[in-house]
Amino acid sequence: MATKIKGIAASEGYAIGRAVILREEVVPEGISYIEAGEEAAELTRFDSAVASARGELEALLDRMKADGREKESEIFEAHLMLLEDEELIGAAQERIRSQRYKAEAAMNEAGEEVADMLAALDDEYLRERAADVRDVSRRVIRKLGNRSESDGLQASSAAANEKSILFAFDLTPSDTAQLDPSVIGGFVTAAGGRTSHSAIIARSVGIPAIVGAGEGALHIENGQLIIVDGAAGLVLVDPKDEELARYQALQQQAAGKRALLDQYRGQPSVSADGHQVELVANIGSVQDARQAQELGAEGVGLFRTEFLYMGRPDLPTEEEQFKAYKEAAEAFGPGSPIVIRTMDIGGDKELPSLQLEKEDNPFLGYRAIRICLDRPDLFKTQLRAVLRASAHGNLKIMFPMIATLGEWRQATALLEQAKQELRSENIAFNEQIEAGIMIEIPAAAQMADRFAREVDFFSIGTNDLVQYTMAADRMNPKLGYLSDPLHPPVLRLIDRVIRAAHKENKWVGMCGEMAGTPVALPILLGMGLDEFSMSASAVLPARALLSRLHRSKLASLSEAVLDLDDAEAVRSYVEKHVPELKD
Amino acid sequence: MATKIKGIAASEGYAIGRAVILREEVVPEGISYIEAGEEAAELTRFDSAVASARGELEALLDRMKADGREKESEIFEAHLMLLEDEELIGAAQERIRSQRYKAEAAMNEAGEEVADMLAALDDEYLRERAADVRDVSRRVIRKLGNRSESDGLQASSAAANEKSILFAFDLTPSDTAQLDPSVIGGFVTAAGGRTSHSAIIARSVGIPAIVGAGEGALHIENGQLIIVDGAAGLVLVDPKDEELARYQALQQQAAGKRALLDQYRGQPSVSADGHQVELVANIGSVQDARQAQELGAEGVGLFRTEFLYMGRPDLPTEEEQFKAYKEAAEAFGPGSPIVIRTMDIGGDKELPSLQLEKEDNPFLGYRAIRICLDRPDLFKTQLRAVLRASAHGNLKIMFPMIATLGEWRQATALLEQAKQELRSENIAFNEQIEAGIMIEIPAAAQMADRFAREVDFFSIGTNDLVQYTMAADRMNPKLGYLSDPLHPPVLRLIDRVIRAAHKENKWVGMCGEMAGTPVALPILLGMGLDEFSMSASAVLPARALLSRLHRSKLASLSEAVLDLDDAEAVRSYVEKHVPELKD
Repeated sequence: MATKIKGIAASEGYAIGRAVILREEVVPEGISYIEAGEEAAELTRFDSAVASARGELEALLDRMKADGREKESEIFEAHLMLLEDEELIGAAQERIRSQRYKAEAAMNEAGEEVADMLAALDDEYLRERAADVRDVSRRVIRKLGNRSESDGLQASSAAANEKSILFAFDLTPSDTAQLDPSVIGGFVTAAGGRTSHSAIIARSVGIPAIVGAGEGALHIENGQLIIVDGAAGLVLVDPKDEELARYQALQQQAAGKRALLDQYRGQPSVSADGHQVELVANIGSVQDARQAQELGAEGVGLFRTEFLYMGRPDLPTEEEQFKAYKEAAEAFGPGSPIVIRTMDIGGDKELPSLQLEKEDNPFLGYRAIRICLDRPDLFKTQLRAVLRASAHGNLKIMFPMIATLGEWRQATALLEQAKQELRSENIAFNEQIEAGIMIEIPAAAQMADRFAREVDFFSIGTNDLVQYTMAADRMNPKLGYLSDPLHPPVLRLIDRVIRAAHKENKWVGMCGEMAGTPVALPILLGMGLDEFSMSASAVLPARALLSRLHRSKLASLSEAVLDLDDAEAVRSYVEKHVPELKD
Repeated sequence: MATKIKGIAASEGYAIGRAVILREEVVPEGISYIEAGEEAAELTRFDSAVASARGELEALLDRMKADGREKESEIFEAHLMLLEDEELIGAAQERIRSQRYKAEAAMNEAGEEVADMLAALDDEYLRERAADVRDVSRRVIRKLGNRSESDGLQASSAAANEKSILFAFDLTPSDTAQLDPSVIGGFVTAAGGRTSHSAIIARSVGIPAIVGAGEGALHIENGQLIIVDGAAGLVLVDPKDEELARYQALQQQAAGKRALLDQYRGQPSVSADGHQVELVANIGSVQDARQAQELGAEGVGLFRTEFLYMGRPDLPTEEEQFKAYKEAAEAFGPGSPIVIRTMDIGGDKELPSLQLEKEDNPFLGYRAIRICLDRPDLFKTQLRAVLRASAHGNLKIMFPMIATLGEWRQATALLEQAKQELRSENIAFNEQIEAGIMIEIPAAAQMADRFAREVDFFSIGTNDLVQYTMAADRMNPKLGYLSDPLHPPVLRLIDRVIRAAHKENKWVGMCGEMAGTPVALPILLGMGLDEFSMSASAVLPARALLSRLHRSKLASLSEAVLDLDDAEAVRSYVEKHVPELKD
C-alpha cells in the first residue's frame, strides 16, 4: 500500500530504489561494575581500546585523503581529537577509577553525557555534534569488545541488487562516509537535523537524504520500493505507478534545471528591471568559501568565525586566523566583499579555554560582543588578524549582538587600538576597512537611526531578531508558529532598519535564513535590501528568481505586508501577488 | 576603622547597634553510605526524623497563629507542605533505598538538588524559595542528629546588652521568624535577594535588613558598632561620630516622613497641574490585596494568579480561584479596578500537575498564554472563575505573553465560550468586563496599533519587555547594564504603545518594576501613561512625587529622552530636568 512519510529535507534530489533497513547496534544499557582492586587493569583495557580506535580512525583518514575526500576527512580529524578530549575520555577514565564502572559502561555514560550536553545546545551546528560524540564512543565500545568496524552496512547493501534506499534510526558520520553512491541511492533517518554531519556528507556526496523522519519511518520492510524526495523531505513507500512515473520525470527535470541554473553562475544579480543587489554566502570555514564561490556567490556576507575557535582546547592564534580570513578572501578574488563577523560564542557554545559559566537562558546570555568587550586580549587578536587579512582582499568587519551605542563605540575603540598597533609595527592593512554591526537585537533595530550615523553598514540577522522579537526560542519545537520571519512585527523592524540606513547612505545586508527564502525575496527587494547573504546552494536559485522580478512593482507589496495579521497572511499575500515565485 | 559594605536593600529603615555574627551550622558534606541490608532501618530512622520535624513545625505554627503573625505562619505552612513533597522527601528516600546513602546525606543531597533547581529559575520569587527548601532539609538533618531547633540565635543575641545587628551567611525563614525586634535592630546576610522569605519577614516585622552583601560582610568582629542603612543597602562598620550623628538624625527624619506620606493615603493620584492617573498595586494573593489597600493603592494593576497554582500537587478549582479573586476585589471595595492576569506559568515555573518539559531557554519558552491556548480545559476554569468574581467587583482580565493577533483572538474566543457557559448556567458575571493584554513581547509593542483596535486596554510589562528588547536575561548578573528599562529603545516602544492605545481611546497601564521607579515617573507621566501598577509600598511615595510634578511640562522631556544614547544618559537627563525628584 502506498504511504508517505514526512521528514526534514537534508539533501536535495530524487532517489528511487529498494528499502534496506539498518538495525541499530545494541549499545550496553545500564551500568555494570568491576570489583574493587580491578580499576587499574580495567583502565589499561580501556586505554588500549582507545588506542585501537585511534589506529582505525587514522587508517580511515589516510584512505579518505588518498581519495581526495577532503570534507569528510575533516570530520574524522575531529573524531580523532575527540579521542584526546578530557571531557569525554577523561570522564570515562574517571568513572572507571572512582566509580568502578566497567569500561564499556564508563565510555557509554561519558559519551551520552557529552552528547546530551551538546544536544541541548542552542546552536544547531553544535547540537548535531552529539552524533559525532556517540560515533566515537561507539567506536571505542566496539574496540572493547574486540570487534572491528561494523560491516552491517556493506552486508545489507550487498543484498540488494538495485540501488538501495537506506533506512536507519540515525547514521553516524562513520556510517555515512561508508556509503557508496553507486549502490546507495538515498537515505532516510528517524533522527537528526539538517546540519548533522550525516546530512552534510550526504549533500557533499550528492545523495538525496531525509532526516528526522521519526521512528515510524523504520516500520517498513526490506525490499519495499521507495522514492526519496529530498527537496520536499518526503518518503514514498510502495508508490503507485503514476507517482513512480512522475518522479522519474522529476529526476530528469532536475538534471535539466541544474544545467539551467548554471547559466546564472558568474552573472551579476539583477532584477528584471535592472536593479542590482549582491547575493553572497554565509560560511564557517575556508572550505565553505571555496564551495560558495563555485556555487555562484559574489562574496561572503557572514563569515562565522566562531568555528575557528570551537572544538579545540586552545584559542586560535592571530596567525591562524589571519590565514583563514586571507584564504577565504582569496577564494573569491580581490574585489569580492568578505564580511567577517567577530566571534559569536558564549552562553552554551562553550569554549574550554574560556571557562564560561552555564546560564539559565543562554540565548539571552553572556555571548558574542558581550564577552569580547570584557576580554580585549581575545578580541584584539581577532581584530588584528582581520585587519592584516584586509591587505589581501575586500574584507569588512562586523560585530554581533550589539544592543547599545556604547557597545558599538567600545568595539570600534578596540578596533582603532588594533589599527594603531599595526601601524606602529608597520604591518599593512586596509585603512578604509568598513565596520558595521549585526542587527539581531530588537533594541538595535529600534535605534537603527542612531546607529546608522556611526556604522558603515548593517547586516540583519533574522534568526536571532525573530526569536527576540517574538520571545520564542527558535529551537523550541512547541513554538514553531512564532519562529517565522514573515511575522509583520519582524518585517516592520526590517523595514525600519533599511530606511534608517539608506537615510544615512549606508548599505544594509541580511544574513539570517530569511535572506535565502524565495517568498521573502520580493518583500526584501521591495524594501530596498542591498545585500542578501544565504547558504551557498541558495545563491543561484535566488539569482534566477531575482532576474524575473520587477523591483519597481514590489514597493507597494512591501508596504502592504506590514499591516497584515501574521506570517501566514503575509505568505499567502506574496504568493498571490508575485506570480514569478511559481516559475 | 570605619568601613562600608554594599548589599541589596531588603527592608527599609535605619538601625544602629552592635554586631553579632551567627556562625553557619555545619551541614554534612560529601556522601556517606550505609551497608547493604541496612536500607529499611535507615528509612525508618529517616521517616521518624521527618515526623519529628513536622511536629516541631506544627508547634511553631501554633505559636505564630496565637501571636497573630499571619504572614509568617503562611511561610511555615509551606514548609510543612515541603515535608510531604515527593520531589524532596521522596527523592531522599529513594537515595537511601537504591543508592544506600546515609539518611543525612540523602536529605542533604535531595535538598540541595531541589534548592539548586529553584535557585536557577527565572522567577525571583521562586528562586528565593531555595532558602525554604534548605531550611526544611536542615531541620530534618537536625532531627536525624536528635538535636532540637538551633538556639544559636538566642545565645548570640543574649550576649549583647544593646540592640544587636545580626550578621549571617544566610538566614532561613526559621531563623528570621525567631528574631525579636526588641533585641535585633537589623540584620545583614552575605547571600539572599530582595524576595527571599527572610527579606519578606524583615519587611513585615519592620526590621531594617541588607541581603546579598557578599562573604566580605562576615569578616567583622562581634561587638563592632554597626549602622544598617536599609534604604541604601549599606552597612557601616565602626562609623565615625559624625556618621553616627547623621544616621541618628536620619532615624528621626524617617519617622517624620512616614507620618508625612500617611497624608496621601486615600487621596486621588493627581499631578500638581491636575492630571489624574491611577496608582495601583501588583499582588500575588488575597493577603497582598489587603496589605496593598492599607498602603494606599487604588486597586490592583496586576494579580499574578500563577501563585494560586504553584507549590501544590493539584490545580486550584474554579471555586478556589473564584474565592481568591472575589476576596481581592472585596479588599478594595466595589469601584476599584482589579486586573486579573491569567496564569503565567511554564518554562521553569514548574507545575507538577502539568508535567512540562525542561527547556533550554525558558524565558523564550512555552509559557503563559502559549500553554493556556493549548489547554483550554485549564484556561477556561480560570476564565470562569474570573467572570464569576466580576459580579462582585470591578474585575478586568488580562492575557500575558501575547505575541500575535491570532493568540489574542483565540484567547477572547475562549473567554466568549466561558461567558456563554455561564449564561446558559444562569450564573452572574459582568457582561461588560474589560479584556486586555500585557505588552511584554517586542512583537506586540511593534503591532500595538493593530492590537489597540481590538483590546480594551494594554498593560506594559517592562520586566520582560526589557529582557527581550535588549536580549538579556534580567537574572544574569553579567548583563546588568542591559537590564535597564530606561534604555531608549525600550522607552521608544513604550511611547509607541501609549500613542497607539490613545489613538483608539484605550487606556494603558504599566505593571513592570519601572512603574514604581521615581526617575521613570516623570517620563511615563509625560508620555501619558494612565495607570501605574507597582509594589504596594511604592504607592504613597509615588503619589507624593506625582503631586509635585507638572504634567504639561513633561511632554518635551518624554520626547527628548527617546533620542539619548543609553539608560545612563536618560537617568542624568531626567535628574537634571526634574528638580522635584530631589524633594
